This record gives sequence, C-alpha cells and structure tokens, in this order.
Amino acid sequence: MTHQTVGHAPAGDQDGPLADCPDSALVPPGHEPRCPVDITLATLSGRWTPLVLREFLRRGQATYSELSAALPALSDKVLSDRLAQLTSAGVIERHRKASWPPRVRYILTSQGRALEPVVHSMWEWGMARRDALG
Amino acid sequence: MTHQTVGHAPAGDQDGPLADCPDSALVPPGHEPRCPVDITLATLSGRWTPLVLREFLRRGQATYSELSAALPALSDKVLSDRLAQLTSAGVIERHRKASWPPRVRYILTSQGRALEPVVHSMWEWGMARRDALG
Repeated sequence: MTHQTVGHAPAGDQDGPLADCPDSALVPPGHEPRCPVDITLATLSGRWTPLVLREFLRRGQATYSELSAALPALSDKVLSDRLAQLTSAGVIERHRKASWPPRVRYILTSQGRALEPVVHSMWEWGMARRDALG
Repeated sequence: MTHQTVGHAPAGDQDGPLADCPDSALVPPGHEPRCPVDITLATLSGRWTPLVLREFLRRGQATYSELSAALPALSDKVLSDRLAQLTSAGVIERHRKASWPPRVRYILTSQGRALEPVVHSMWEWGMARRDALG
C-alpha cells in the first residue's frame, strides 16, 4: 500500500490529532464519544448551538430569559435542549441562587471559554470556504 | 437586559466569529448553511468523517482501495458517502486518470489542508474535556 505524503504533513502524525480516534469511533451510537474531535463536534452539534454558545462567549453568563430575549427565533424547547447540552458538555454551569424568587443563571466555565479559539478557527475556515463558493 | 461580560471577552465581538450567524441559522434545514461555523461543522459531521479526513491529512491523496484498507471498519457505503461529503465540501478533489484501467485518486485540496489546525484545536479541546471527565 502506497503511503504518499503531500504538502506539509507533520512528522509523527500517528501521535497527533485523531491518533486515538479509531477505536473510539467504534463506540456504539448513543454512547459518549471518546475521540477528542468527536467530543468537540458533539459539544457544538445541533441547530442553534453555535448561537447559544456565542451569547455566553459575549456575556459570560445569562439567565434563561436573557437568552430567550437575545435569541427570539429559538423555541423554548430548543433553548432548553441547548442549555442542557452545553451544561452536560461542561461549557456552562447552572447556578441557582437561593433568593426569592429563586434565580437560575448559566455561567460560562473556563472550559467553555477555551472553546473561543476553537470556534474562531472553525469560523475562519468556514468563511474561506464560503468565499471560495462565491 | 443586562449585558455582562466575564473573563476576557474580546472587545468588538459583534464583528467577530459568529457575527453573521443569526440570519444564516434561519436557513431552512436541507439548505446549505451560511454561518461559517455551521459550514465547518457540516464538513466534519457524521460518523467516521474525522477518520477519513485524517487519512488525507496523513497521505495527501489516496485511492478508494487504499482508504478501504486503512479503514476496514467502514462499509463501502459509508466510505463512499464520506468521500462524496468531503468532495462537495472542497476538502478533497476527485481525479480520474485516463489510463487503462482508469484510476481514480482523491487528492487533498489546499482548503482541506487548512482544516489541519482547525481539527487540531478541536482535538485539544476534546482532550481537555475528556481529561476533566476522568
């Protein structure tokens, strides 16, 4: 089997990104992905997820009603689903203040903040692709 | 509506990543996404897609049979679907050599090569998330 390398493929790529994805990709559907790229993809997947994430990258934290006002196109179900998704992915944390009435805030975690350069690089690639399509 | 900023949210983020995603997210399902982040997500989405991409980042180019041998877990249908997906996303190009028998090679494009740092940053975030889960 030929194994040609074109361009600037890094040496030792066997240990680089995606190196441990083969077995992880064998995880049955429905299980948590083990491949790091799949973990990130799952975190960002789903309609509107990047937009909800953007609100947190801008604000750092938000209440449900603030998000609902900022993203009027999202139904309550979709917004709730996205908050649950980002919470379980460790991007935001749900904080319940013991006041009356109790107030729930969602706060961006440091792991969530670390998504900023990732989303930025995805945004740049998508822009270049969009430009190429004309 | 409060608009709090926590951490190192960049100034002028309104013009930054995801700035033009709101209207694009209103595109009906089934249409091409316009949001750059969604374009990148769509490019990488789907089971095994990161693995097929990895083969191209390593090799630069490959025939169908080389890919099939390198990724034995993928059915012919899945591999064909992934090659079509990456081709239509501009990541690889299909080259047909006018020899006998005709030989088809898939070659990584410069746009495909530009996905390497994107996937790398996604991989790093997923690794940190996986470590945090223990």
